[in-house]
Amino acid sequence: MTGKLYVIGTGPGNPDQMTPEAARAVEASTEFFGYFPYIDRLALRPDQVKVASDNREELNRAQAALQRAAQGVNVCVVSGGDPGVFAMAAAVCEAIDAGPAEWRDLDLVVVPGVTAMLAVAARIGAPLGHDFCAISLSDNLKPWGVIEKRLRMVAEAGLVIALYNPISKARPWQLGTAFEVLRTVLPAETPVIFGRAAGRPDERMLVMPLGEADAARADMATCVIIGSPQTRVIARDGKDDLVYTPRFLAPGAT
Amino acid sequence: MTGKLYVIGTGPGNPDQMTPEAARAVEASTEFFGYFPYIDRLALRPDQVKVASDNREELNRAQAALQRAAQGVNVCVVSGGDPGVFAMAAAVCEAIDAGPAEWRDLDLVVVPGVTAMLAVAARIGAPLGHDFCAISLSDNLKPWGVIEKRLRMVAEAGLVIALYNPISKARPWQLGTAFEVLRTVLPAETPVIFGRAAGRPDERMLVMPLGEADAARADMATCVIIGSPQTRVIARDGKDDLVYTPRFLAPGAT
Repeated sequence: MTGKLYVIGTGPGNPDQMTPEAARAVEASTEFFGYFPYIDRLALRPDQVKVASDNREELNRAQAALQRAAQGVNVCVVSGGDPGVFAMAAAVCEAIDAGPAEWRDLDLVVVPGVTAMLAVAARIGAPLGHDFCAISLSDNLKPWGVIEKRLRMVAEAGLVIALYNPISKARPWQLGTAFEVLRTVLPAETPVIFGRAAGRPDERMLVMPLGEADAARADMATCVIIGSPQTRVIARDGKDDLVYTPRFLAPGAT
Repeated sequence: MTGKLYVIGTGPGNPDQMTPEAARAVEASTEFFGYFPYIDRLALRPDQVKVASDNREELNRAQAALQRAAQGVNVCVVSGGDPGVFAMAAAVCEAIDAGPAEWRDLDLVVVPGVTAMLAVAARIGAPLGHDFCAISLSDNLKPWGVIEKRLRMVAEAGLVIALYNPISKARPWQLGTAFEVLRTVLPAETPVIFGRAAGRPDERMLVMPLGEADAARADMATCVIIGSPQTRVIARDGKDDLVYTPRFLAPGAT
């Protein structure tokens, strides 16, 4: 008799943005694996145990969670945002793929959530209103050269770009370099959104043109969205500007 | 005294996947603008009025909603999934951008939701576990040539590709042509996911290699996810296969 393994996303951090499906998975679980700040978003019962760990040990965490589920425990692996976007769902699948055969028999339930770029986009208008991509700037798991190549290609393709993991103490220069690469492809006036902690009390939204985009405005809690040449800004008196990307593309535009 | 204009996403259709924030926006609104099937997901009170319209008249619908909000009505514009992803938030911003000055003074609240690709990805494993993009196959609003170019470039860049609006009565050939384009770039064994109505009673998930991908398996309720060369399939006895894209990229891979 094995337990259930839930892999959930809390959403951006505002409890109002966590789905009832995720809340039910939390209720049904007795052991919680995840990064402290994400687990601490949950109001757990005394009988529910937190097994927190460093955010960089995702594969070990996934293996530990799978072991407990295989022992019959109902386990919940907690990510912020959506668990399938640069988060724990892939780590759990990696662990199953490389792990003992019985892990494939586990009842795995991945519960989707509102990922950061969607919460940031909603606060500022509709910058993701047309074709877009999500790219992690972390070069812990892929070579930086691949990241630069991808940034260049998606910018040339005319996609709006959401950057996850833009900056950290261990990765201080990557975002600035990414802006330099994108300036060689995109107009200097392309809007860049620094969306920090969307929906949380410490939320901070900032819009500046790519030509002046300053990496120092981002931290680990920031999702950076770079517009396409089609992205527009609507100025509003006494209100934040709206940033949106039209659904249509004029013939001739590329 | 103007009303509030909420632009919400219901999520994929399963009420458990709609956020409390969206539910609250529904409670606070008295007039609802949107495509019938999306509005019908909401349990409205007798005093709440549905103003449904054809799904292709998005700009008109946005203008009508803005007019009512400017008249002091609390209005809710309803999209499926997330309102900022190929949905009404961009149409509302387009209408504000081109509309009368007073529309810029309206209290606009965009409420994010779980978009289709996240719900499909969760049901199948973690196919969006690494860099990915979302592209609409609808050539109503952009030239088909741009779509083909984008498909080629994002596939060459190694991104997983989520296709929205893959097929309709009016657009029967585009998805098949998209598969042909992608076959010139990606290995024939690249997993393709046909994710229909994720989380709803009529949900149907289908995985087949790109070499055999058949556009006829998709309908208007389907989100198609095409893996990258890194995407892997885990076979499980008596359970659906898991499809995931590892978080890491081996040096040398591109």
